[in-house]
Amino acid sequence: MFKVTFSFEDGSQVETYANAGDNLLEVARGANVAIDAPCSGNASCGKCRVQLRDGELDSKKTLHITEEEYAAGWRLACVSLVSGDVNVLVPDISSAYKSRMKVADLSSPEEIAIFENAKREITLAGIELRNSLDVVEVDMEEPSLDDTMPDNERLTRALRKFMNLDRVRVPYAVLRKLPDVLRDNHFKVKCVLRATPNDMFVYDVFGADTDVVIGGLAIDIGTTTVSAVLINMETGEILAKGSSGNGQIRFGADVINRIIESRRPGGVRKLQDAIIKETINPIIHEMCKSARINRNQIYRMCVASNTTMNHLFAGINADPLRMEPYIPAFFKTNSLFAGELGIDINKDAHIIIAPNIGSYVGGDITAGTLVSMIWNRPEFSLFIDLGTNGELVFGNSDFMMSCACSAGPAFEGGDISCGMRATDGAIEACTIDKETMEPTYKVVGEPGTKPVGLCGSGLIDVISELFMTGIINPKGKFVREGKRVRHDKYGMGSYVIAFEEEAASVKDVEITEVDIDNFIRAKGAIFSAIRTMLSSLDFDVSMIDDVYVAGGIGSGINMQNAVYIGMFPDIPLEKFHYIGNSSLSGAYLMLLSTPAEKKTYELAQNMTYLELSTVPTYMDEFVGACFLPHTDTTMFPRVEKELASRQ
Amino acid sequence: MFKVTFSFEDGSQVETYANAGDNLLEVARGANVAIDAPCSGNASCGKCRVQLRDGELDSKKTLHITEEEYAAGWRLACVSLVSGDVNVLVPDISSAYKSRMKVADLSSPEEIAIFENAKREITLAGIELRNSLDVVEVDMEEPSLDDTMPDNERLTRALRKFMNLDRVRVPYAVLRKLPDVLRDNHFKVKCVLRATPNDMFVYDVFGADTDVVIGGLAIDIGTTTVSAVLINMETGEILAKGSSGNGQIRFGADVINRIIESRRPGGVRKLQDAIIKETINPIIHEMCKSARINRNQIYRMCVASNTTMNHLFAGINADPLRMEPYIPAFFKTNSLFAGELGIDINKDAHIIIAPNIGSYVGGDITAGTLVSMIWNRPEFSLFIDLGTNGELVFGNSDFMMSCACSAGPAFEGGDISCGMRATDGAIEACTIDKETMEPTYKVVGEPGTKPVGLCGSGLIDVISELFMTGIINPKGKFVREGKRVRHDKYGMGSYVIAFEEEAASVKDVEITEVDIDNFIRAKGAIFSAIRTMLSSLDFDVSMIDDVYVAGGIGSGINMQNAVYIGMFPDIPLEKFHYIGNSSLSGAYLMLLSTPAEKKTYELAQNMTYLELSTVPTYMDEFVGACFLPHTDTTMFPRVEKELASRQ
Repeated sequence: MFKVTFSFEDGSQVETYANAGDNLLEVARGANVAIDAPCSGNASCGKCRVQLRDGELDSKKTLHITEEEYAAGWRLACVSLVSGDVNVLVPDISSAYKSRMKVADLSSPEEIAIFENAKREITLAGIELRNSLDVVEVDMEEPSLDDTMPDNERLTRALRKFMNLDRVRVPYAVLRKLPDVLRDNHFKVKCVLRATPNDMFVYDVFGADTDVVIGGLAIDIGTTTVSAVLINMETGEILAKGSSGNGQIRFGADVINRIIESRRPGGVRKLQDAIIKETINPIIHEMCKSARINRNQIYRMCVASNTTMNHLFAGINADPLRMEPYIPAFFKTNSLFAGELGIDINKDAHIIIAPNIGSYVGGDITAGTLVSMIWNRPEFSLFIDLGTNGELVFGNSDFMMSCACSAGPAFEGGDISCGMRATDGAIEACTIDKETMEPTYKVVGEPGTKPVGLCGSGLIDVISELFMTGIINPKGKFVREGKRVRHDKYGMGSYVIAFEEEAASVKDVEITEVDIDNFIRAKGAIFSAIRTMLSSLDFDVSMIDDVYVAGGIGSGINMQNAVYIGMFPDIPLEKFHYIGNSSLSGAYLMLLSTPAEKKTYELAQNMTYLELSTVPTYMDEFVGACFLPHTDTTMFPRVEKELASRQ
Repeated sequence: MFKVTFSFEDGSQVETYANAGDNLLEVARGANVAIDAPCSGNASCGKCRVQLRDGELDSKKTLHITEEEYAAGWRLACVSLVSGDVNVLVPDISSAYKSRMKVADLSSPEEIAIFENAKREITLAGIELRNSLDVVEVDMEEPSLDDTMPDNERLTRALRKFMNLDRVRVPYAVLRKLPDVLRDNHFKVKCVLRATPNDMFVYDVFGADTDVVIGGLAIDIGTTTVSAVLINMETGEILAKGSSGNGQIRFGADVINRIIESRRPGGVRKLQDAIIKETINPIIHEMCKSARINRNQIYRMCVASNTTMNHLFAGINADPLRMEPYIPAFFKTNSLFAGELGIDINKDAHIIIAPNIGSYVGGDITAGTLVSMIWNRPEFSLFIDLGTNGELVFGNSDFMMSCACSAGPAFEGGDISCGMRATDGAIEACTIDKETMEPTYKVVGEPGTKPVGLCGSGLIDVISELFMTGIINPKGKFVREGKRVRHDKYGMGSYVIAFEEEAASVKDVEITEVDIDNFIRAKGAIFSAIRTMLSSLDFDVSMIDDVYVAGGIGSGINMQNAVYIGMFPDIPLEKFHYIGNSSLSGAYLMLLSTPAEKKTYELAQNMTYLELSTVPTYMDEFVGACFLPHTDTTMFPRVEKELASRQ
């Protein structure tokens, strides 16, 4: 066995042992060291770079590492085999878009506003903000030799009288603490209950003097990013907010690679552990600490996620999702409880899953559709969720159609050499001076935070600015020269947004023609999906009344720039509305309001699904959209006019 | 740290480490070495004998160890402190009444007959042998691109159509295996279901070609002994039978000591582990192996036990049971499931608990009352369960009264120097020749098995024979001399049933005056309880029509001898019926038949409870009964006549 040491830029290290010939990326995965490998180790994405500090690796050379870089010790982990003791640096950028859990007890006003808006709009639509959880105070007679009723019956009778319900269930967890809680509090207690017209379930029991908060957890499990809010189920107040990279990222960037990994022996369990034990539970612990609430006082959880994510979350074989006829194990299920899944909240807590409507349109979209309110308006609205998969819903109060396209992880920083999630160090907005070609950018984090990479909203800005200033052409190739424009020996151009000395990274923050190409394919997938779905309904983009854009790609999205690059149709800007992470706010509404939960099931049931791959024109639409803004410039008259005015 | 080695007669050893001054009995408990200590380490019972083989112990001398024994290295573990490396022999007799799991796939015809009888009698009483578990075959259409219903809905719809029930629950365990089972079997499966008028619960799913047995587990958790049967829930057939000592025995012989131990830090968990992990799960594993059934195919379990045992089994604070006003946490509960308790059967399996009717009359008695059938007859019957606690029920189809008396563990071999459970090596029957004073005995086990000690039925025989042959007087003192009668230096007499060379033990199998005294108190407790309860109802023993005696004290009980010693009233012998372990056969009926389960709840609800300690005459009755057969010999005219005829 050889000693393998992973060093990080912050000076920390992880040590493990491996045999000669072991693949370094696998060794890292085994040691829970996150090295981004969106292609899951096929040597195709070039993201799993590490730098030798000490010792040797038996590495293949690849196009992703230049001769100079190779000489400087850079290697791709996925093509490196252990051949002795070795110490490698894992640069921040290689682990930037996983990790970095962020928890706050008070979110920014903009973030809070998203939930407040969601509540207001759903209430205006006549959907009540009520759920079945409640706290009640129960005052019992103490037992005596003349009144020897056992503890559980004593409580049950008191509750029955109180709630006028016949069937009361006292689960094991409550039965177990009952003798002590009753006697410590002279038989005066508070109970956390779920009361439905048929029965009552006692989740918990406390002394009557205790301040009892009924906690609830809404969570958006994205393929790349996981976001959650801890809420007070009585008031809807956000008690804490947290997010983190999805720990499954080390098994591949997209759902297909994850499913393939899950088919290996023990794979389903590994993928489930990566999301629950490594990602969700740590977020829960931090949020509970921040909100000063006991995790056993979280009595309900709502999960919104795509179909693959909710299957892997539940530890259920997702393989049928990717193979004809693409059948999920469930659209909706009532069978998940925290204890069985190993989620660190009250073990009897029910896990609500936002319903899937197919293998490629999941609960993230049904929850998002709820929040978008498009089902409540006569106008024709388009709802777009920008994630690793792009999903669209088009319709109004009479009909809704959905479709999904594989945008890839570019909007969340994947498949981009300097891409990262929208966490500290991410460039989230950027302008470029037409004359000097110098960039001005905004970085996520405390003022003064140095840039590490680019998140989705930053990418849109950079590419749009490069295009509108004529630095790149409609094909995404560099056509101007300057201090920040470089070409490697193969002639591939790149633009440096922050030189190494300006950045908090071991290398320049730059964008290459390969990155731009990847991004153009992502935006092309979205635009062609919009066109194809609308055509199938005999609609045209001009007939769209409103566009609701969702996704956790930054603090917002510059809609103008998104239109300039041809990601969104060239319609008046005022029609665009950014609604934030609607998967999370939708989960929040479903958690807080049982009628909203029911509404979501109803929406899911009534939504038709268009499988884009079955539409013959989709491929042509896609190819046409892989230009800036499009091969058919007549579709983007305003962009053409602006380009002309700037020349 | 010193090394402490526990050696056993079979040559095996257990090694552990301890600090100077650690109590040897505690060290043994920590190492899971069972040394009987019915008094829980108070130096009062004298049962925790060990013999030094090597090294030293810092031991107090006690009356329980003679000078010769002390010189031979005998010590009481409870008064011995570790003072260096040491190796002690734990004689079989010291661990005989714990341990020795016994599992058989086919029980003896007598044992089978007990369950067959129970089934026949309950059926005659009009109670059907049906339960809610069932296996059904489900044949579904395979999904296609035109029929993309998810797996759980496909199954649910098929079942709904089939059973005409609306609410179908597919729990997590089934959801998880569903995609694979459906596809491996072309969507033709068998389901194990629980169908009630309201809903259906799918316990399991298999390929349609699988032979599916619905397993069920009935278990009697005695304070001393645990017995179980694994059954086929469709036919009632006994697939395997198992028994073992209760692993909690190392925490004390009686319920009070167990409760006290459970109040130490971590105690509830320790006691629960001792019964579930150390006792019940190993029996389950062995029974499943013997019956060739997967333990996940045990879908229901019924537990009959006294109130303390079912509280400790459930890991619930039992302290209120022993303190005024003696309130259990539950009489009955629907809240226990195998997965939560860590019982190694299907994790969704429901645990039925035979209902308690108070702190001192528990589910073992309500289940036993069901089997005794006394509730179904106009005649006045007395039901007696001889266990560590003695419990009585008296009544008929119109009324029933119950009471409990603390007999102590004597009937199961506790508190008796050579006492043991009715397992291999136990003398279960005995006669003594009046002239030669030589014994003839029957030993549990294969023919030729040498005696190790005395079980309950053997004790009754030996004491009755000693009394009827005039070897001991009515006070239990030795009054004849002979080869087998000995007196120690304090004058205490004893009778040797098997000398060391005849026995499979390191010392003589004998019965001492102290043993006889302990046993007389136990039988006195039973007899005085009978008298007291009957008096409270203005009944006399002559008005008893039938006596049903239950308890696992041996292959049977010599009723004549039990009357000779004044344990049972002197009424015609044909009125006595031994019904075996009625707690187990009652659990079996409750498991197999939902109407029988309901009947038991009804019996429990209608049974009144007499607290003997509140009856002023009970103590006088008890003192009077502490003779052979009684101080008032007019109560035993037949015994007097027999004694006279033998003189």
